[in-house]
Amino acid sequence: MNSRIQKDTIESIKIPINKYWGSQTEKSRKNFKIGVPGSMPIEIIHSFGYLKKASAYSNFRLGKLSKEKKDIISYVCNKIINGKLDDQFPLVVWQTGSGTHTNMNVNEVISNISNIIIKKKFKNKQLFIHPNDDVNMSQSSNDTFSTAMHLSAYKKLIENTIPSIKNLIISLKNKSKLFSNIIKIGRTHLMDAVPITLGQEFSGYAHQIEHGFNCIKNTLNNLSKLPIGGTAVGTGINAPCGYDKIVVEFLKKKTKLPLKITKNKFAYIASHDSIVESHAALKQIAVSLIKISNDIRLLSSGPRAGIGEIYIPENEPGSSIMPGKVNPTQCESIIMVCMQIIGNDVTISMAGSSGNYELNVCKPLMIYNFLQSAQLLSDSCKSFKYLCIDGIRPNYNRIEKFLNRSLMLVTVLNVHIGYEKSAHIAKSAYDNNSTLKEEAIRLGYLNSDEFDRLVDPKKMV
Amino acid sequence: MNSRIQKDTIESIKIPINKYWGSQTEKSRKNFKIGVPGSMPIEIIHSFGYLKKASAYSNFRLGKLSKEKKDIISYVCNKIINGKLDDQFPLVVWQTGSGTHTNMNVNEVISNISNIIIKKKFKNKQLFIHPNDDVNMSQSSNDTFSTAMHLSAYKKLIENTIPSIKNLIISLKNKSKLFSNIIKIGRTHLMDAVPITLGQEFSGYAHQIEHGFNCIKNTLNNLSKLPIGGTAVGTGINAPCGYDKIVVEFLKKKTKLPLKITKNKFAYIASHDSIVESHAALKQIAVSLIKISNDIRLLSSGPRAGIGEIYIPENEPGSSIMPGKVNPTQCESIIMVCMQIIGNDVTISMAGSSGNYELNVCKPLMIYNFLQSAQLLSDSCKSFKYLCIDGIRPNYNRIEKFLNRSLMLVTVLNVHIGYEKSAHIAKSAYDNNSTLKEEAIRLGYLNSDEFDRLVDPKKMV
Amino acid sequence: MNSRIQKDTIESIKIPINKYWGSQTEKSRKNFKIGVPGSMPIEIIHSFGYLKKASAYSNFRLGKLSKEKKDIISYVCNKIINGKLDDQFPLVVWQTGSGTHTNMNVNEVISNISNIIIKKKFKNKQLFIHPNDDVNMSQSSNDTFSTAMHLSAYKKLIENTIPSIKNLIISLKNKSKLFSNIIKIGRTHLMDAVPITLGQEFSGYAHQIEHGFNCIKNTLNNLSKLPIGGTAVGTGINAPCGYDKIVVEFLKKKTKLPLKITKNKFAYIASHDSIVESHAALKQIAVSLIKISNDIRLLSSGPRAGIGEIYIPENEPGSSIMPGKVNPTQCESIIMVCMQIIGNDVTISMAGSSGNYELNVCKPLMIYNFLQSAQLLSDSCKSFKYLCIDGIRPNYNRIEKFLNRSLMLVTVLNVHIGYEKSAHIAKSAYDNNSTLKEEAIRLGYLNSDEFDRLVDPKKMV
Amino acid sequence: MNSRIQKDTIESIKIPINKYWGSQTEKSRKNFKIGVPGSMPIEIIHSFGYLKKASAYSNFRLGKLSKEKKDIISYVCNKIINGKLDDQFPLVVWQTGSGTHTNMNVNEVISNISNIIIKKKFKNKQLFIHPNDDVNMSQSSNDTFSTAMHLSAYKKLIENTIPSIKNLIISLKNKSKLFSNIIKIGRTHLMDAVPITLGQEFSGYAHQIEHGFNCIKNTLNNLSKLPIGGTAVGTGINAPCGYDKIVVEFLKKKTKLPLKITKNKFAYIASHDSIVESHAALKQIAVSLIKISNDIRLLSSGPRAGIGEIYIPENEPGSSIMPGKVNPTQCESIIMVCMQIIGNDVTISMAGSSGNYELNVCKPLMIYNFLQSAQLLSDSCKSFKYLCIDGIRPNYNRIEKFLNRSLMLVTVLNVHIGYEKSAHIAKSAYDNNSTLKEEAIRLGYLNSDEFDRLVDPKKMV
Repeated sequence: MNSRIQKDTIESIKIPINKYWGSQTEKSRKNFKIGVPGSMPIEIIHSFGYLKKASAYSNFRLGKLSKEKKDIISYVCNKIINGKLDDQFPLVVWQTGSGTHTNMNVNEVISNISNIIIKKKFKNKQLFIHPNDDVNMSQSSNDTFSTAMHLSAYKKLIENTIPSIKNLIISLKNKSKLFSNIIKIGRTHLMDAVPITLGQEFSGYAHQIEHGFNCIKNTLNNLSKLPIGGTAVGTGINAPCGYDKIVVEFLKKKTKLPLKITKNKFAYIASHDSIVESHAALKQIAVSLIKISNDIRLLSSGPRAGIGEIYIPENEPGSSIMPGKVNPTQCESIIMVCMQIIGNDVTISMAGSSGNYELNVCKPLMIYNFLQSAQLLSDSCKSFKYLCIDGIRPNYNRIEKFLNRSLMLVTVLNVHIGYEKSAHIAKSAYDNNSTLKEEAIRLGYLNSDEFDRLVDPKKMV
Repeated sequence: MNSRIQKDTIESIKIPINKYWGSQTEKSRKNFKIGVPGSMPIEIIHSFGYLKKASAYSNFRLGKLSKEKKDIISYVCNKIINGKLDDQFPLVVWQTGSGTHTNMNVNEVISNISNIIIKKKFKNKQLFIHPNDDVNMSQSSNDTFSTAMHLSAYKKLIENTIPSIKNLIISLKNKSKLFSNIIKIGRTHLMDAVPITLGQEFSGYAHQIEHGFNCIKNTLNNLSKLPIGGTAVGTGINAPCGYDKIVVEFLKKKTKLPLKITKNKFAYIASHDSIVESHAALKQIAVSLIKISNDIRLLSSGPRAGIGEIYIPENEPGSSIMPGKVNPTQCESIIMVCMQIIGNDVTISMAGSSGNYELNVCKPLMIYNFLQSAQLLSDSCKSFKYLCIDGIRPNYNRIEKFLNRSLMLVTVLNVHIGYEKSAHIAKSAYDNNSTLKEEAIRLGYLNSDEFDRLVDPKKMV
Repeated sequence: MNSRIQKDTIESIKIPINKYWGSQTEKSRKNFKIGVPGSMPIEIIHSFGYLKKASAYSNFRLGKLSKEKKDIISYVCNKIINGKLDDQFPLVVWQTGSGTHTNMNVNEVISNISNIIIKKKFKNKQLFIHPNDDVNMSQSSNDTFSTAMHLSAYKKLIENTIPSIKNLIISLKNKSKLFSNIIKIGRTHLMDAVPITLGQEFSGYAHQIEHGFNCIKNTLNNLSKLPIGGTAVGTGINAPCGYDKIVVEFLKKKTKLPLKITKNKFAYIASHDSIVESHAALKQIAVSLIKISNDIRLLSSGPRAGIGEIYIPENEPGSSIMPGKVNPTQCESIIMVCMQIIGNDVTISMAGSSGNYELNVCKPLMIYNFLQSAQLLSDSCKSFKYLCIDGIRPNYNRIEKFLNRSLMLVTVLNVHIGYEKSAHIAKSAYDNNSTLKEEAIRLGYLNSDEFDRLVDPKKMV
Repeated sequence: MNSRIQKDTIESIKIPINKYWGSQTEKSRKNFKIGVPGSMPIEIIHSFGYLKKASAYSNFRLGKLSKEKKDIISYVCNKIINGKLDDQFPLVVWQTGSGTHTNMNVNEVISNISNIIIKKKFKNKQLFIHPNDDVNMSQSSNDTFSTAMHLSAYKKLIENTIPSIKNLIISLKNKSKLFSNIIKIGRTHLMDAVPITLGQEFSGYAHQIEHGFNCIKNTLNNLSKLPIGGTAVGTGINAPCGYDKIVVEFLKKKTKLPLKITKNKFAYIASHDSIVESHAALKQIAVSLIKISNDIRLLSSGPRAGIGEIYIPENEPGSSIMPGKVNPTQCESIIMVCMQIIGNDVTISMAGSSGNYELNVCKPLMIYNFLQSAQLLSDSCKSFKYLCIDGIRPNYNRIEKFLNRSLMLVTVLNVHIGYEKSAHIAKSAYDNNSTLKEEAIRLGYLNSDEFDRLVDPKKMV
């Protein structure tokens, strides 16, 4: 492999010839051969694209950076934003906990490509763009990586997770309306209980996801706050006055997101409470989705030896050995996603608690887990909606059969003949494998007409 | 032990003579000898006191329950609310997952004491108060236990946790102001970094706890919603129309809490997303507090071989073997509390995800963990504030010594002589065990005056 | 309240007259009003009883402590071991992370009671037993509390958890044998699958718990190792040579447990990997038990709208509103216990990872969670065995009905007519609501005799 | 994109022309667009390569499969094993919970490539290899995926994780020996304590990792057990007698791993307790490593305002803004890995607990998290050893300075003048900013010679 030599403040180092990163990136690549190469989420790189461009603009506006430099840096940043340079970022999550290596990776790629452009196009040998002094001007890894975390997380929620969840809610609400007249047996403790409509069950599901959706929305404001301008420890050393405002205004315009500057840059660099907070809302939805998915696969279980009150779409053959088997695979998939998110929440909580002094050094870990959760939740909510919920149909036959033979319809008699006589009827029917009506009459508690008038599932929901 | 005989719908059973519970309580007591007796949180019992009273009132208002019965039930409920009957509730958390046994425990105690009162005072042999038909009228365990969960959780947060956290924030803000002029070395990656003020550090702590405080407040609205009136599965079978509104109005008046009826009783009985949500906010604060407490014990470490930039109060002798030792015990205590809360959050998430069909059957587990977290957080924030934060004093000597010999003051030179020359100075000073100034002059990058003008910690914060 | 004055190395303090603890205990009591008073597990106190007695003996044997002192200390220790002084230990888990306050609580109670005995009985004013110099002689909190943790944990496993689990295994194996000829439908993905015997299902349960049981046993050796003699940091400063061996020999004799000295006292004081390890084994069993309990409540669900293949004992009335309802309460209870244990495992992992330098300061938290898990697991396994597993009976009717109408019996035809034709038969039977046999003949794949010969559930298990 | 048509038992479907998978794979690819494509670990695919080859061999040996078919299948399997077909497996973790889609992906790729080979080379139009009837002969996804899980997990531990950990232990032990004479101050509660040697500290680290290493080894036996031959539910339906033994013998020979058949295939398909067990051991090591890494970064903190008792290698420039900064990046990286593993353990525990009846349907989730943890732990232990531990050097200067001015050397006086006088000396020295010796003499407790004789750090370790 061809290579070129680059040096940093410690030593010189070889780099593949077709790669534009520099010595610090290369060192990180060699020193952190941990897990899959390039595992640092690409969303972070793209956010850095926006951020370095905004920084160049702000430094230019404040008279710190020449127009030429600003323009070239912006040009390279656009390529990063548009995903044209994705193969220039080989670093892993498991690097320094401040994400400095990735910040330097971005600085180096921008600087090196800029300098190639200068040589080729401008033939201007004087102009040189330095990774630290120019691209990283007025910045530290500590404020930029933290800012890129917030930017990536916010964008992911707004552009992916929230729309998917919204659509799922619509789908659940539709089903709730559609099923509003289907009376079925309710079940508590997995045991037969009093009637409910299928629509009511789905209204509960819709309500849960809407609850979680509001939880996510509650967290967006804190997530939209950025510590840019705080530089190394939050004090803003080496960042000129006004720098942060111009950066954030620029980012707002380019990303169309309602970003703002945090009121306390110290807290936002030393900790990531907003990441912890927003992820807890993702976890909240995961918790709800496990409940709902479990219900759906229980309700659709069978076809002949299960509950079978609903049909779910037959998306794929279910078994390599059992012909004709169809399984609730969308439910299983989303449940696995949700369990991943619940585990990720523990990782994020530990990571969030582990800052020291002026810096949290689990930044890459936190955003890696956050983005994984947000992406998986988004994708699986979409899949779950289109390939499961939307296709649910009631099995009227089973629903009616279960409803009519239920012993718990006796509950309605409590208010007429009391709990103990009602229990007597239910137990007798159970023991004699008979109906409630037969027993109510046999025991002399009610006559046939009274029974029919009182025990009517339609009046119970 | 003397005993009396009680029977239920299954069989007869003996009960200690001085206890007012009935057969269902006694059965639960015998069938669930798991862990410490009486572990069901007493807050749940007291909430049931309010709820059974409110129910009797509502049933009376709707013409379902006589004034006499309502009055006697209310009289016994008052005793429960005031903690006079705490020894009548021997059941454990690890019972049925709906909390039915505790609901029946309350029903039985109210019924049995009521009937004794009737016999003694009223000499009215006709009047009989039935645990199910009267005390539990219009209710199920499923809606009442869920309602008692919300009531207990909400009260605990409002009356304990939130005030403690508020006071902690005030204390942290006070320190932040008080320490606003103390310039010290900042640390990132645990390593020396650029200066910051001690006040800025504490402003970060205050900001974090305020962030968490707002997270808790965000969750209160959902927590204030009650599923009472939903009875067994959320449909409200056997509860008369209007029952729920009267109950909630009564509860609002008696508890002075802004309670309301949930819009979806199905979701609130089959799941406990509000409990999951509010606990995540407690966990959020736990995450922040671990960071802060760790900082404080690191900053106060020493006295001679640690950081020692601050003094914390000497509350107790620290060691049984090392005389004169004083330890950061309040920090250690609150860190343990926070780790408990992070573990409890996992339990609550699993429990919250495990409902089936119309009922979550991990109710006792969820509220047990919730109340433990809320109480421990409340108590330890109070303790941490009064016995640690309030007493923190700076060690001016150490702060100044560390600040002056720091090599990272060099950072400010980046913008004057560039990153690489600045690095050269810092590395030389480190290698030669000299000062930045000596090296800056020796290397010919700056003269003495320039150095003094540029490298001034006061201008760096 | 009457009180007396005690002083320590910091100040003087008042103590209730009927309590024998001293100033350090009282200070901890006042400084850590966190959660329920006295929450430090009593098992730790009892272990300290053994340990202080063993220490006095060892110090006596090594000529450091007089026979009189040793005898009096032993006398008081016996009272502690026998639970006669349980009300003298008011401290909480949420104290200093080394457990020093509890060590001093023990030292003070032994010293104060000893000195009262000396005054009363011996009339010997000369003799004085000092909490640090005598009771704590050759010890530190750091090695004694760690030792008490191991002793308590080991004892709890041996005396409670392991026997309960063993009995549960026996019960599951019995059921497996008893049910070995009951052929039923198997279910995968909650959907109908190929046949299995009920005995085979229970053999899987037994195998799982046996697996977990072996996991616990694997951890006992490490748990039996004690760091006593390491004193403050593991070096054994102030402990005479040979002290540790005599202590451990004494403990072995008195507790009849195969205790030993750890080979690395540094690791055993600075960390608690054995606690982490053994708790992970408890968690392992919790994981298995959730699976098994869920199966049992699904299999017993109904009575008329569920699976209902087995009966579980009717232990209590299940509902306050639905008469005649019986619920799988033992399953629910043990599932809650298991979820608590999974959460506790996170707490223990975090706590275990948080030691610094020579000391882990989450000791009380770790042992509190460990003992809770071990006790709850023990109690609930016992309850689950006697009140659920032992009483399980098959519902032959349902089992046969489900088996005979299953479409997945078609699987056996794969090897005769191939997967695709088999799938064709199954799908046709499903679509036409007919039997496999009808379709096999109609589609011309098999004749009646062939079908009967090949499709025989008895040959499939 | 060119495509061809394939059909399954449900419908026909288009597939890219250069891909050899079939309709079931393609359907899964379309129905589960969740997260990164191809996220199913490649280790699982390679394990399937071994397994399908072993199956073909076993079926051949038992007279079920012709030699021709066996040979062609084996030929394609070799390509899979050698990684030549890695781009033919596009499916994700978040598919059906049994991993059926991946099993079918393997079946289809083998079948399609086999049939192409047949057409091209053999010109034998008669011979046709069916994905289900031939490649999947005698198998189900349920036993094969479970077997592939064990095979992958076992191989990963043996080939990667265990060797890395072993090397780390050697490195820590080396340092322990090397540093055995370096006496330094010990620290408990982060506060100055009694002396210890640097070698003793490292012996504790070595002991911890060795402890964890033994924990992993303890789990290998269960992990080596395979449920192959159990087919769909563990009964082995459609697998000929003896099939499992031949498969496992073949696997043993080819992989050189001591594999065996599990005694209970029901448990090994319906649950994954061995995965839970082995991962808990990985978590155990993660817990230990966090402690150790934190120590190392605390001990190396500085260079001028930290502890600085050791030097760690300067691997990269530490900061994009602070010139000359060097950070403990290997520590940070491995700590992030360990927190990921602790979170993964929660995911695996939940997943492990969620089986129902005859099948756990979180199989892909479990093995995905397991392999991630095992790989990250392996890689980061290697990195940590070579780039951190191996390069640690003591800073003699700082070590001596801290040791000599410590007040806790006073501890050794307890046994001579008692705890209270010793405390008096320490407190006076602290208050007067003097030395212990000065105060001991001033207070008249000891003379100069006595002090020097008694207070000698060398005698304290």
